Amino acid sequence: MPIRPFPPLDLTHGRVEMAHGAGGRAMAHLIQQVFVTALGGEALAAGDDFARVTVPPGRLVMSTDGHVVTPRVFPGGDIGSLAVHGTVNDVAMSGARVLHLTAGFIVEEGFPLAELVAIAESMGRAAREAGVGIVAGDTKVVERGGCDGVFITTAGVGVLTDDRLDIAGDLARPGDVLLLSGTVGDHGIAILSKREGLAFETPILSDSAALNGLVAAMVAAVPEIRVLRDPTRGGVAATLNEIADQSGVGMLVREAAVPVRPAVRGACELLGLDPLTVANEGKLIAICPPDRAEALLTVMQAHPLGRDAAIIGAVLADPDRVVQLETALGGRRVIDWLAGEQLPRIC
Amino acid sequence: MPIRPFPPLDLTHGRVEMAHGAGGRAMAHLIQQVFVTALGGEALAAGDDFARVTVPPGRLVMSTDGHVVTPRVFPGGDIGSLAVHGTVNDVAMSGARVLHLTAGFIVEEGFPLAELVAIAESMGRAAREAGVGIVAGDTKVVERGGCDGVFITTAGVGVLTDDRLDIAGDLARPGDVLLLSGTVGDHGIAILSKREGLAFETPILSDSAALNGLVAAMVAAVPEIRVLRDPTRGGVAATLNEIADQSGVGMLVREAAVPVRPAVRGACELLGLDPLTVANEGKLIAICPPDRAEALLTVMQAHPLGRDAAIIGAVLADPDRVVQLETALGGRRVIDWLAGEQLPRIC
Repeated sequence: MPIRPFPPLDLTHGRVEMAHGAGGRAMAHLIQQVFVTALGGEALAAGDDFARVTVPPGRLVMSTDGHVVTPRVFPGGDIGSLAVHGTVNDVAMSGARVLHLTAGFIVEEGFPLAELVAIAESMGRAAREAGVGIVAGDTKVVERGGCDGVFITTAGVGVLTDDRLDIAGDLARPGDVLLLSGTVGDHGIAILSKREGLAFETPILSDSAALNGLVAAMVAAVPEIRVLRDPTRGGVAATLNEIADQSGVGMLVREAAVPVRPAVRGACELLGLDPLTVANEGKLIAICPPDRAEALLTVMQAHPLGRDAAIIGAVLADPDRVVQLETALGGRRVIDWLAGEQLPRIC
Repeated sequence: MPIRPFPPLDLTHGRVEMAHGAGGRAMAHLIQQVFVTALGGEALAAGDDFARVTVPPGRLVMSTDGHVVTPRVFPGGDIGSLAVHGTVNDVAMSGARVLHLTAGFIVEEGFPLAELVAIAESMGRAAREAGVGIVAGDTKVVERGGCDGVFITTAGVGVLTDDRLDIAGDLARPGDVLLLSGTVGDHGIAILSKREGLAFETPILSDSAALNGLVAAMVAAVPEIRVLRDPTRGGVAATLNEIADQSGVGMLVREAAVPVRPAVRGACELLGLDPLTVANEGKLIAICPPDRAEALLTVMQAHPLGRDAAIIGAVLADPDRVVQLETALGGRRVIDWLAGEQLPRIC
């Protein structure tokens, strides 16, 4: 039975009130008029605290990601699209088909309803584009000053229908090849430039994107892929160090092979940042056996999100698990992961 | 391969720093020494951004719940155990077997590591007691003042292995019977008394508990159950109004049949609260056909979390979807759900 219509909220000038998180009629209004409208879907509209969903047979994959990015709207995206992409990508990095998301909102009292609507609409668009449903949600409201605007924690499930796939961070082997799906540093520099009011000649957009389509093409063509991971916080440097640690291997990356947009490279030089440590939200690192690397590169470059894909290095036998960079001048240096904080609230 | 050991954090006097959320080595330390240690489990220890989990065949159920409760430690629980119970219960209200949780933490810079460890340990205990695993997590750190201490958003999956079960909020039918699993108002009053420094003769404990075991016994004995819902924010009043709205029915509740602890009743009188609008975190409402109500009550009362279960009323045909209370004196009044805010940050 359709839920009884509620009197309309003022979505233009209204603000989130404590009552919108109190479990009563005001919360039902908010859920119906903001979230159900923007995010759509039968499961969400049903009004239960759970969603019953269909999942094809296979191994289940789960992940979660919290989003506290500031500013909430940045060149190339916003906290809503990012909250979808972040979890879609984490699930996709298992090789799974990503199916369903949940979304938990924590909102500050006084937050403009119009901005909440815009965020929810952006999430809805991003989810539709990624082919996933947002099937369950939750809203909490905290008093003014209790949080900074809005935080969104998404969780997702996917399913591994292809039994041949075994993709995980501890499976890199010496001799394997490192591939990167495109340019690095775009997201971090886009956020930083907006936050600091920096103007570059060429506007730098975040690369925030859902990678599940790219991954589907990759695993269909090369099921022998051993590792997939998206280099978000901490950038490529942190991601390669994590994988080296998990797999007990070393790595060698050729600096000249790592794609970096000229504008991002310029900004990094200006700001004293290494592009390898700057966050990405629409890129992935893939590791595969050497005899499959060219095939994988071809598939990646054929996809719109992998056009600039490149082979960037190789996995080495190294009990010390060191990630090294071969510089353009032929020298070598260690790529460590950051010990401290570089860019807070980047995602 | 086991992840390389990290130098120990100072878990007694240390504090969360921005670097603990930056994706670098400091974050890896925190995850390993706080979350993996306390929450255990192979999937979490593996160090991937996703978890591959086993799920028996059946319909999948998903839910999510954010937790911003204040104070973080209250009589009968804390934000960690509550974050487990909240999502376990939302998934369980479908009748599903609850299997796996994810946990997303948003932590304020400067938060004491010792308190974070205590919260994580409480989550781990609650999950083990509920028989669920915490298989994936995420940690974000925001600057001082960016959030109030720590917020935890959990998501969960379960599976409906029994094809006979069809439990949802829109399935209540006139003539059905309303059952309640125990006393109401305990959680809300426990939080409020701690927050306001109220001392009662009998200490009032939150009822925070995982209801999946109770639900398993109920659906095994009475698969004809039509609706299950836990009356959290907004209490029994909001929950019954939600279900009446979804199902297009009215309800009549006998006030004298609703179990309320004397201490909670006294506190509510003192504070001017109606126990029916006060939050619970370890209770459920069940609706079933009349010929199965006695059987269901017997099963509920046989379970430790349903000892005080009672039949509290019936579903009526009513196109206006009104929930009515028959008072102890024989009069009738409408139980509306709260329009405004009563107890902020109760969960």
